[in-house]
Amino acid sequence: MRQHDIDGFYADLSALDTDAHLLLDYRIECTGNPRVAAAHLASEQSTAQWQRMGVDEDYRPRFAAKVVDLEVETTLSGTSYPLRPAVDEPVSVCRVRLAHPYANFGPRIPNLLSAVLGEGAFFAPGIPVVKLLDVTFPDAFLAHFDGPRYGLAGLRDRWHIHDRPFFFGVIKPNIGLDPAPFAELGLAAWRGGLDIAKDDEMLADPAWSPIAERSRRLGAARRLAEQETGVPKVYLANITDEVDQLIALHDMVVANGANAVMINALPVGLSAVRMLRKHARVPLVAHFPVIAAMSRLPHFGVHTRVLTKLQRIIGFDVIIMPGFGPRMMTPEDEVLECIAACTEPMGPIKPALPVPGGSDSAATLATVHQKIGNPDFGFVPGRGVFSHPDGPTAGAASLRQAWAAIATGVPVAEHAEGHPALAAALGAFG
Amino acid sequence: MRQHDIDGFYADLSALDTDAHLLLDYRIECTGNPRVAAAHLASEQSTAQWQRMGVDEDYRPRFAAKVVDLEVETTLSGTSYPLRPAVDEPVSVCRVRLAHPYANFGPRIPNLLSAVLGEGAFFAPGIPVVKLLDVTFPDAFLAHFDGPRYGLAGLRDRWHIHDRPFFFGVIKPNIGLDPAPFAELGLAAWRGGLDIAKDDEMLADPAWSPIAERSRRLGAARRLAEQETGVPKVYLANITDEVDQLIALHDMVVANGANAVMINALPVGLSAVRMLRKHARVPLVAHFPVIAAMSRLPHFGVHTRVLTKLQRIIGFDVIIMPGFGPRMMTPEDEVLECIAACTEPMGPIKPALPVPGGSDSAATLATVHQKIGNPDFGFVPGRGVFSHPDGPTAGAASLRQAWAAIATGVPVAEHAEGHPALAAALGAFG
Repeated sequence: MRQHDIDGFYADLSALDTDAHLLLDYRIECTGNPRVAAAHLASEQSTAQWQRMGVDEDYRPRFAAKVVDLEVETTLSGTSYPLRPAVDEPVSVCRVRLAHPYANFGPRIPNLLSAVLGEGAFFAPGIPVVKLLDVTFPDAFLAHFDGPRYGLAGLRDRWHIHDRPFFFGVIKPNIGLDPAPFAELGLAAWRGGLDIAKDDEMLADPAWSPIAERSRRLGAARRLAEQETGVPKVYLANITDEVDQLIALHDMVVANGANAVMINALPVGLSAVRMLRKHARVPLVAHFPVIAAMSRLPHFGVHTRVLTKLQRIIGFDVIIMPGFGPRMMTPEDEVLECIAACTEPMGPIKPALPVPGGSDSAATLATVHQKIGNPDFGFVPGRGVFSHPDGPTAGAASLRQAWAAIATGVPVAEHAEGHPALAAALGAFG
Repeated sequence: MRQHDIDGFYADLSALDTDAHLLLDYRIECTGNPRVAAAHLASEQSTAQWQRMGVDEDYRPRFAAKVVDLEVETTLSGTSYPLRPAVDEPVSVCRVRLAHPYANFGPRIPNLLSAVLGEGAFFAPGIPVVKLLDVTFPDAFLAHFDGPRYGLAGLRDRWHIHDRPFFFGVIKPNIGLDPAPFAELGLAAWRGGLDIAKDDEMLADPAWSPIAERSRRLGAARRLAEQETGVPKVYLANITDEVDQLIALHDMVVANGANAVMINALPVGLSAVRMLRKHARVPLVAHFPVIAAMSRLPHFGVHTRVLTKLQRIIGFDVIIMPGFGPRMMTPEDEVLECIAACTEPMGPIKPALPVPGGSDSAATLATVHQKIGNPDFGFVPGRGVFSHPDGPTAGAASLRQAWAAIATGVPVAEHAEGHPALAAALGAFG
């Protein structure tokens, strides 16, 4: 681009209608002049050609994404990650903020993704390494989205869970177990104090555990547990399946007694979940497969907070995400940012319940609670409940006993002395 | 895992029912013992817990993914890509082939993605860096999928395009232009010899170019071009939108005269496209936003050939992909592998038409043809047609003139001497 061409992709944010623009924060590693590279980033994702041959016109003022901030942080002798074909020249590391006029695509998830993570972002000339760090949505854009039907506060009311975390458990063995013993495990855990017994994200509708039969058995077990305990219990059925099956599966499992449904968000597709949200009559729970494939590297792909925000906007009440602990290979600040993306104010969109997961048990509850700083989270052990040495009832009880200690300021290990389920959990998982 | 536990995740491929397994090829960088890491990779994506507490059972023989090949290629002092949290220990670079019994999830795209690119792949203990390089599908699995309705041969018959590449053109300016002049540009290009005039992947259904009006105008222009030229012409409408709009949009644009539809595959979701395939009555064309976010790094994420295969299986007739040329930042061998993934034999699934794209014009056609080695491809300039100095008719003609030279073994530059459109294209883009 010539100098005048480049200038057409720059603007002062204060001169733009903020209701009409998304703010996109990218970190880029660019060759050549950063000002030119940032202009390409804006151009390629909006009006890559802004006039016809031989016509005196310019589509940039109305339609171009504009660079509203550009900071060169440092220069490197080459890209942070070796690429093929190799980039054998110095690169500038920059933060770029774009204001993108969303009337170009409207409040549509697939078109939004195409704009901010498409050819424009990843094939802009001179920008071989790029990560979309954040998207800020004006309320006028958010107003087109339903967000969570229940949200965090609604779930607390619906499930009678107050002033404490939500206790989930992934029924294990996750693959191979018949529905009848699977339901027995759920029942045992509910009896011990579990709130939500859930299918593993890999367990959907296989021949050896048809979801019709599984949801009938778990629905019945859930109602029995409610009768016995006098409090609401939740069976969270994984209805991850082909898009044209989602609504029918929702209706079937709900009729059978499931009172929440899980969808693997990216594998099914965010837009398909937005469709389901219009129909669903129980809380929607997101699981996170595929997200790490585009978010783990610090400087490439998309930050998990962006995908967390999108999951909230389209209507998930609960967002399960990689949590604390070394197995989840996620920095603590990133987990906290994703939790904030669930709960922070977002115009008309309700807060969602964040569920940072991974290798948890009664032994990790105090640490997780301390890191988050409040009880507005879900806690989702698998083995920590279902491989408890004394079985799932004791496994679930160990969580409630650990919380009782935390809530009253007693060290968990000390509280274990009079509470065998907790003591056994600390012995097995601590 | 203990030694005996690990052994349960290994098998000889010759002892397995090949019809019942997908073969998954991963490249991993693992800490510790590679044999243990590979067992975790298999375990986490299948039966992460294979027995209940206190029950003598083992779900691994039937349900576990099995390591059928493990090769340690080299060791490194740390991961290829710096991570957060950092991995400060040596890693082994390994190729791992797993055989995954797909009855665990069935012939469902979302559940397949969850298995091969989910928590199992990206959160297996000791494997911070992983890339899914390939998936091999047995015919018994593929038999559940429709694949392309027309496929490469069907498109040649339908569109009367034989013994040469398919000439696409992206109408530009892509963003901001009203439907009436947009249709004039398409008509001009068809008159010059373009086969398929297409919407940009960022142009869908904005207020300033409603797809209803655009498809009416382009449909009429397309029919006029067919009358004038006596050959089939194609208007490829981009119907990328929310999932619950796809079928209605398909029906509307086809009624208006569009005779192919484009969907941004990952943004809309592969499963949603599979749904559309059951309904669609015109060829389906894939565009590639988001794919680079999980595929560009040589050693992380997923190889583009896997996503190309999936797009073919679910029913795309045409797959637009990053092509040759430095702007597309894709190694030549990878482009060729994706082209092969479109056209190589695949059981009951027809070949799709590969369209490697990016900054093409009459000046690059000979090189692209030479690299591919045959004319079974689509060629998709934007500026190369619509920014031709003499306008889109000359831009399209320049492609046909370049092909005439190539087909008869005449150097393109030599052929340009008697062909002004080609000469102007070489001058502008060469």
